[in-house]
Amino acid sequence: MTSPALIPSFIKGNWWTPSNPQKLSEIQDTSTEEVIFTASTEGIDTAGAIEYARTVGQKNLGELTIHERALKLKELAIYLNEHKQELYDISFASGSTQRDHYIDIDGGIGTLFTFSSKGRRELPNSNVIIDGATEPLSKDGSFAGEHIYTRLPGVAVEINAFNFPVWGMLEKFAPAFIAGMPSIVKPATATGYVTEACVRLMLESGVLPEGSIQLISGSARDLLDYLDYRDHVAFTGSASTAQTLRAHPNVQTKGVRFTAETDSLNAAILGPDAEVGTPEFNAFVKSVFVEITAKAGQKCTAIRRVIVPAGRRDDVIKALTETISSKVKIGDPRTEGSTTGALASSEQKGEVSSSVEKLTAAGGTIAFQSEAPSEGAFYPVTILTFDDPRNEAVHSIEAFGPVTSVIEYSDFGEAIELANLGEGSLVATVCTNDREIAQQAVLGIAAHHGRVLVLNREDAKTSTGHGSPVPHLVHGGPGRAGGGEELGGVRAVKHYMQRTAIQGSPNMLTAITGVWHQGADARTVTRESVDTGEDVHPFRKSLAELKIGDQFVSPLRKVTLEDITAFADSTGDQFYAHTDEEAAAANPFFPRRVAHGYLLVSWAAGLFVDAAPGPVLANYGLENLRFITPVTYDDSIRVTLTAKKITPRVTDEYGEVAWDAVLHNQNDEIVATYDVLTLVEKK
Amino acid sequence: MTSPALIPSFIKGNWWTPSNPQKLSEIQDTSTEEVIFTASTEGIDTAGAIEYARTVGQKNLGELTIHERALKLKELAIYLNEHKQELYDISFASGSTQRDHYIDIDGGIGTLFTFSSKGRRELPNSNVIIDGATEPLSKDGSFAGEHIYTRLPGVAVEINAFNFPVWGMLEKFAPAFIAGMPSIVKPATATGYVTEACVRLMLESGVLPEGSIQLISGSARDLLDYLDYRDHVAFTGSASTAQTLRAHPNVQTKGVRFTAETDSLNAAILGPDAEVGTPEFNAFVKSVFVEITAKAGQKCTAIRRVIVPAGRRDDVIKALTETISSKVKIGDPRTEGSTTGALASSEQKGEVSSSVEKLTAAGGTIAFQSEAPSEGAFYPVTILTFDDPRNEAVHSIEAFGPVTSVIEYSDFGEAIELANLGEGSLVATVCTNDREIAQQAVLGIAAHHGRVLVLNREDAKTSTGHGSPVPHLVHGGPGRAGGGEELGGVRAVKHYMQRTAIQGSPNMLTAITGVWHQGADARTVTRESVDTGEDVHPFRKSLAELKIGDQFVSPLRKVTLEDITAFADSTGDQFYAHTDEEAAAANPFFPRRVAHGYLLVSWAAGLFVDAAPGPVLANYGLENLRFITPVTYDDSIRVTLTAKKITPRVTDEYGEVAWDAVLHNQNDEIVATYDVLTLVEKK
Repeated sequence: MTSPALIPSFIKGNWWTPSNPQKLSEIQDTSTEEVIFTASTEGIDTAGAIEYARTVGQKNLGELTIHERALKLKELAIYLNEHKQELYDISFASGSTQRDHYIDIDGGIGTLFTFSSKGRRELPNSNVIIDGATEPLSKDGSFAGEHIYTRLPGVAVEINAFNFPVWGMLEKFAPAFIAGMPSIVKPATATGYVTEACVRLMLESGVLPEGSIQLISGSARDLLDYLDYRDHVAFTGSASTAQTLRAHPNVQTKGVRFTAETDSLNAAILGPDAEVGTPEFNAFVKSVFVEITAKAGQKCTAIRRVIVPAGRRDDVIKALTETISSKVKIGDPRTEGSTTGALASSEQKGEVSSSVEKLTAAGGTIAFQSEAPSEGAFYPVTILTFDDPRNEAVHSIEAFGPVTSVIEYSDFGEAIELANLGEGSLVATVCTNDREIAQQAVLGIAAHHGRVLVLNREDAKTSTGHGSPVPHLVHGGPGRAGGGEELGGVRAVKHYMQRTAIQGSPNMLTAITGVWHQGADARTVTRESVDTGEDVHPFRKSLAELKIGDQFVSPLRKVTLEDITAFADSTGDQFYAHTDEEAAAANPFFPRRVAHGYLLVSWAAGLFVDAAPGPVLANYGLENLRFITPVTYDDSIRVTLTAKKITPRVTDEYGEVAWDAVLHNQNDEIVATYDVLTLVEKK
Repeated sequence: MTSPALIPSFIKGNWWTPSNPQKLSEIQDTSTEEVIFTASTEGIDTAGAIEYARTVGQKNLGELTIHERALKLKELAIYLNEHKQELYDISFASGSTQRDHYIDIDGGIGTLFTFSSKGRRELPNSNVIIDGATEPLSKDGSFAGEHIYTRLPGVAVEINAFNFPVWGMLEKFAPAFIAGMPSIVKPATATGYVTEACVRLMLESGVLPEGSIQLISGSARDLLDYLDYRDHVAFTGSASTAQTLRAHPNVQTKGVRFTAETDSLNAAILGPDAEVGTPEFNAFVKSVFVEITAKAGQKCTAIRRVIVPAGRRDDVIKALTETISSKVKIGDPRTEGSTTGALASSEQKGEVSSSVEKLTAAGGTIAFQSEAPSEGAFYPVTILTFDDPRNEAVHSIEAFGPVTSVIEYSDFGEAIELANLGEGSLVATVCTNDREIAQQAVLGIAAHHGRVLVLNREDAKTSTGHGSPVPHLVHGGPGRAGGGEELGGVRAVKHYMQRTAIQGSPNMLTAITGVWHQGADARTVTRESVDTGEDVHPFRKSLAELKIGDQFVSPLRKVTLEDITAFADSTGDQFYAHTDEEAAAANPFFPRRVAHGYLLVSWAAGLFVDAAPGPVLANYGLENLRFITPVTYDDSIRVTLTAKKITPRVTDEYGEVAWDAVLHNQNDEIVATYDVLTLVEKK
């Protein structure tokens, strides 16, 4: 037998191991207890790694746009997907079953795909994200403000827990990467070899710019010593470690951005309507079963508190016991028939045993305990129950394994109070088919939770599950859960950016953001200057030629009563404001019969369009249409169309152009404003 | 002479003073040094005040909607505006001039008006704010997720600095109140008598529900001892006090939400193009002048670092010196001719003197110092300069008075580096008329700043100024500035709320949010059932009768080639996709000639409208229009219109109804989706 390999770190662009470590951490196969790896970071150049990220990493990532980086995540996901068997193979040693691998490894890869897609669909193809509307700050329009996000100028430090060595890394890495921040990944040592294998694949893919990622395999006690307000630390793990990190002087006084996702005693509430035999009762039992057995219950999101109506406790325990007895076989995940694997280490097994002892000492009773192998870090599935639902232990002691407690509520108001006694949780499930009960429950517990799932007969089959954070929705929770927020689609990207208010003239806001602002300079062409060949219509410009500020101004067109009547007849829109002079005049907003809003935007298209085939492929939508001044017959309208925002697609031969459209009447009053969305060829 | 009054606190719904205080803080008129008030909180029931807020305050505020609370802020602002002379009168004692009162008192009232207006325009008239789009999480549409904000269930503790006793309170109180959180206000003791006067007016107005506001006049050392993750502390003051508060165990381990707005060495950068004599040079000098003299330079946002091109230092100092010499007269603000008042206390005067000594000891030279009275807390306007622009002192020592330092940069890249040496600031000004320089500067410093103002000839006259946070834009900054974020319109309201992901079936998401979701149950009527009188068209229902989920489904209407051609002719929109069979077919998105998108939405209106006068007053806009499937001739379309969101206006006899509109073709494929925005009468 060869001596176990030392897990390397990857820093400053190279794989690194200490040359002659004095002390090695030993990492066991958690089922066989064989030492399979060692870890040491003695002499690692942490300060150098941070400086490398801030220089090389920032520079290389900054040369790409948000969409370019997002596309790389897709390429990375494809590569990992092709090589995931290697990760499966190595992961069994951590006690994970194949079903657990799907959560950790496929789940991590899926997160990359989702972030890649959302980054390209929901964020601009640049490095400046505009947040919200422009705020006019002067009457004459010469001064305005708005908010932008730009990436943090430091490093994203990602400290992960042992339970999800792949997903835990990728769900933090993906948004940081899209934002343009280089990452330093610090996995939990117990399962860091799986993370190392994944980082190795990520580097082998050749997709990532140099400096995007570094890995510290082993302890990293001095990691925060070199950080400041430019940097971001995302921590997942125990509340006690989070407290130590949060108390670091650089977090306390240097403004290091620190978020934590820590302990959580997640609740599942069975609604009063969910009697035995209802689809809700069955879905509830199944959900609790899954949450305490998947990953051997080692999920921050697992259900620890099962809150049921008075009198229904025994039914729930009975149903759970039957399901567990018939479906669970605890054992080495590489052994045929094992459904639930080991805990992540013998240390963890000790922790869970100790927590269960505390729970029973505090008044809990073990209602059921399954069998489990005595050798290896296996722990039996355990259901506790408490007669006093307000017993403090059940709401504060987290046994991080296949363990849950069942308590009863008297009326539904008490169910809400009990759920909130967790003092801040990641997630809760409310299982009911009564919409009023669902509303009462969710609004009653939302402020104490990061996520709330309503389970009923409509979504029982399609639900992604209580315990599964999805990349689209935030993950994290207040209070005991650490107060952090991860995921949530592009919300997560913004966690790695600074929001800044900018103020200036429209020309300056345009120059800073790359998006044309009302009142900024424009290169104007008219129908006449286009027709005479003096100017080029903006619709005849490809993305390569078009610039923000390219503007077309139409002549006036007069609206007659006959036009309004004809439009009403042809469309069928005979709304009285267009057809009944007296009734229109009685309406508080109209002087007399007015043109349809739809007539105005239809005519506007006729006024601005360039009809012949060209780079503009289609008008795929319209945004923020507001009708400001009514147009009555004998009024005239004209349209001003300005190229506002140009978004080339990284994967297509065309891109999106948003045009600012303003309709004026013959008195230069604004009639309507909106954005016209078009697809335009790159060349 | 009577003994000075003890400033009362207002807790648990009553004015309160200690019965027999052992130790009193003395508060001086800062110009005359006469003791005008005393303060003591000996024996104050802090725990009781917090419990009162969490119960009475939460309950009473929770009975109102966001719009109702926002409207109360307007009523409050009107009342304060009518009584502001009382606040002016008392504020002179704090060293403020009438010009300073406009910033603090009128600025505070203006903030209430802005929040009132934004709360009603930009937030729903309910107690649940939906954040972002619904995320489909199952293929069949039975399971989806989204994010909601609900108010925090605790108390908003607002700890303010001495420099803005009114604005400082109101800019924190307004968003907390709209969110529905009760406030406990803790002003700085030195100027707390002004805050007390304002709170007294607020209570006298009769506008605020009981429990909305409490006031602690004097020290409140145990305030954080009773807080946890349900509560929010917004602190403005020194970095050292912020550190003490942030280190409190309840912040460290109980999840108290803590934001700070602290020190900041704000920079103003003069662009290389802004030569002497340019409008930018003049605007720059004026801005620096205002920022170091207004409020005697006691603004967190004042300009402390004046960064100018090499060789232009003497010009800037000369221009500043001339302006100060000709315009500034320091003295008792109640004395005719005084332009700049005293510091807030003799203690503050000592602090400023000491900081200036440190700056000179570190290598700074005093380039100019104005005159100032020797009695009272007056400090002369002082301009320092440093030969080494990277001298650490100039970037780290904040003399919180009428003091600034001038340094030079060699190339513009260095200007950016120098600004960022502040290690996180509230605000910076970039003064340039060169758009590329502006872009380079703003993108180079944005991540180190909470706000950046670009000053040039276009906005010099209309700019709200470097030093003035506006309620529309965020106020706060990373690093040394405390890492907090206040204001920013409705962003600030959300700081007092918890964001929670919710998951469930469309029916459950509808029940929780009060907004109809695609796929949820609907009460459907058809053209036929309406025409026969069997059902009522939703357009015939007032807000009192209409319910979300009320739905109208139209029959199919066939589109002919003649229709398309006629529409092209009447609107003038002859785009080839509608008029040229061959060219349309060559387009990647169209099978052959297709109907105009504008034709489709116009027809849809014809299909869904109920023409006779009724409660629907107008269609004022359209949102999120997307064309999904092209419609060619001989296709048919139908529309499904569903009441999605109902927002009664608190000040009008009508409200807004957003209708979910979906167009389908004859094969039930989705042709287009959008929201139709209408105004509907309440009765």
